Amino acid sequence: MAGKVHLIGAGPGAADLITVRGMRLLQQADAVLYDALVQPEMLDYCPQAVLIPVGKRCNKASTAQRFINKMLLDAAHKYQRVVRLKGGDPMLFGRAQEELQALAQAGIACEVVPGITAALAASADAGVSLTSRGQARNVLFATARVGEGEAGSDWVRPVLAADTTVLYMGVKQAAEIAAALLAGGMRPDTPLLIVENASLPNAREWAMSLAELPQAAGWELAGPAILLVGEVYRAKQALADGLPLQRLG
Amino acid sequence: MAGKVHLIGAGPGAADLITVRGMRLLQQADAVLYDALVQPEMLDYCPQAVLIPVGKRCNKASTAQRFINKMLLDAAHKYQRVVRLKGGDPMLFGRAQEELQALAQAGIACEVVPGITAALAASADAGVSLTSRGQARNVLFATARVGEGEAGSDWVRPVLAADTTVLYMGVKQAAEIAAALLAGGMRPDTPLLIVENASLPNAREWAMSLAELPQAAGWELAGPAILLVGEVYRAKQALADGLPLQRLG
Repeated sequence: MAGKVHLIGAGPGAADLITVRGMRLLQQADAVLYDALVQPEMLDYCPQAVLIPVGKRCNKASTAQRFINKMLLDAAHKYQRVVRLKGGDPMLFGRAQEELQALAQAGIACEVVPGITAALAASADAGVSLTSRGQARNVLFATARVGEGEAGSDWVRPVLAADTTVLYMGVKQAAEIAAALLAGGMRPDTPLLIVENASLPNAREWAMSLAELPQAAGWELAGPAILLVGEVYRAKQALADGLPLQRLG
Repeated sequence: MAGKVHLIGAGPGAADLITVRGMRLLQQADAVLYDALVQPEMLDYCPQAVLIPVGKRCNKASTAQRFINKMLLDAAHKYQRVVRLKGGDPMLFGRAQEELQALAQAGIACEVVPGITAALAASADAGVSLTSRGQARNVLFATARVGEGEAGSDWVRPVLAADTTVLYMGVKQAAEIAAALLAGGMRPDTPLLIVENASLPNAREWAMSLAELPQAAGWELAGPAILLVGEVYRAKQALADGLPLQRLG
């Protein structure tokens, strides 16, 4: 008889920002399949488990996803308590749907345990709320899709309509993102934050205006980074204004 | 000397969906100020602490907020380790900015610990990802503002631009929300979910089309509910189609 799979959000990185339920399930797991984004310290919760790295980052090709689905099914047939540990939250840019579907088709029971998504951890670190009465009544979580032909600017419209936007996985394309948002009519002085390695000891944070964003294009980042855009970051940006870009946090 | 405040997200409700860090800080707290949305079981983590209910739901008036700010400052002057425990995540519709500002102005140190927001817990329960490759590349978290005069339809434009939308605290105004979205051009067959008490044993879930949403207006809900809208809910809605509205979950 096949085992049960728990698809668990590991959260933003810090080992103590997983949920209590996630930690307890790790402590009881027979096997744990984990992402490249999962920090090694997180695996200290499950010294008893067989550890299976699936070495995936969020933007890898679908071949990799099919391989992960296969490893997940194999593990569920071999072990009773299987944890699939994913960085962030499984249901937000986590490709969970494909894994859930593969498990359902094979008749394997699966439960999802939510995780802290990077935007929430970055906001906690920065001390700036994503929403704020009278100033930001909504927040969009999106990915920028640059260089994808005609569909490449589709991502801009919802960003322009939202009060606050968090762009996941976009900093490498900072120049193209800035160009697309400016072309769409976003003001050059719109404030933004880049937060790298949210929640980890080596977290870094930069505040700037949209006009300055292209300067970030050449940066060598040491870990995953998100881009937070909107008027709620005005005070942070004002502190940094006129200074060379540097860590504020 | 004033104490330190930790502003902690309690998460969606289930006691084991707080973060490990949040739980540990509760275990060490001298005083805990908690919302009406915080479940009693969550307070089992801190039997040693002075418990101070601040009796607030998300949509109360700003007078209540000023009173909470005052209670928070008083507690920080009286106790060394103060926890302010808020339902969901503090940085998303949590009015955290006002509390952070009050603490900063009084020179009191504060750290924020993120929490699982209701949308992530509801998605985990429902087994449907907020984003999905090729189908939903972004998700908007918003509140519907109906009956606020001219500004009352401002909230619609970002919803229409987003692939998936989660509306917090809107189910009582289901009829007005449906009317505004239909007037904005959203298709009547757009699928949606209502999830009440996400993560709790008494959680309930309903799938329907936008055209059916006004039927929810008269419902007596037993707890906080969110409304999730978008094509990702098509399969759930198809299962419910033609049946009287009922719990699927």
